[in-house]
Amino acid sequence: ISPRCQCLFKEKRPIGRFISTVEIYPANSYCKSAEIIATLKKEGQKICLDPNAPWVKQVLKSKKIT
Amino acid sequence: ISPRCQCLFKEKRPIGRFISTVEIYPANSYCKSAEIIATLKKEGQKICLDPNAPWVKQVLKSKKIT
Repeated sequence: ISPRCQCLFKEKRPIGRFISTVEIYPANSYCKSAEIIATLKKEGQKICLDPNAPWVKQVLKSKKIT
Repeated sequence: ISPRCQCLFKEKRPIGRFISTVEIYPANSYCKSAEIIATLKKEGQKICLDPNAPWVKQVLKSKKIT
């Protein structure tokens, strides 16, 4: 576990169709909020998602969670 | 050099004060546009910047380029 939060800026726009996999980091002693980091299909770019955005909850149901 | 572009979504908001270092990837045979990837100070989060945004040009003058 990284000794701090990994996400400062989170993507709010619904980008589900570009996402390949999603990593979920539950809140821990270092980072008091859960963090969700998506990896994009083509570019492999990693993007922090806003855990509260409704479309993100949808993504969590449909994407492979690593 | 990565065999494709690394950035699909780019940050437009002026986030210069959060940036620690900046990596510049000139256009190449795989990716026809230059790409600028910032690493944030606290989180170490990597964020693609919009090369055309005026504030990014400012950042390129002031930040350590790795």
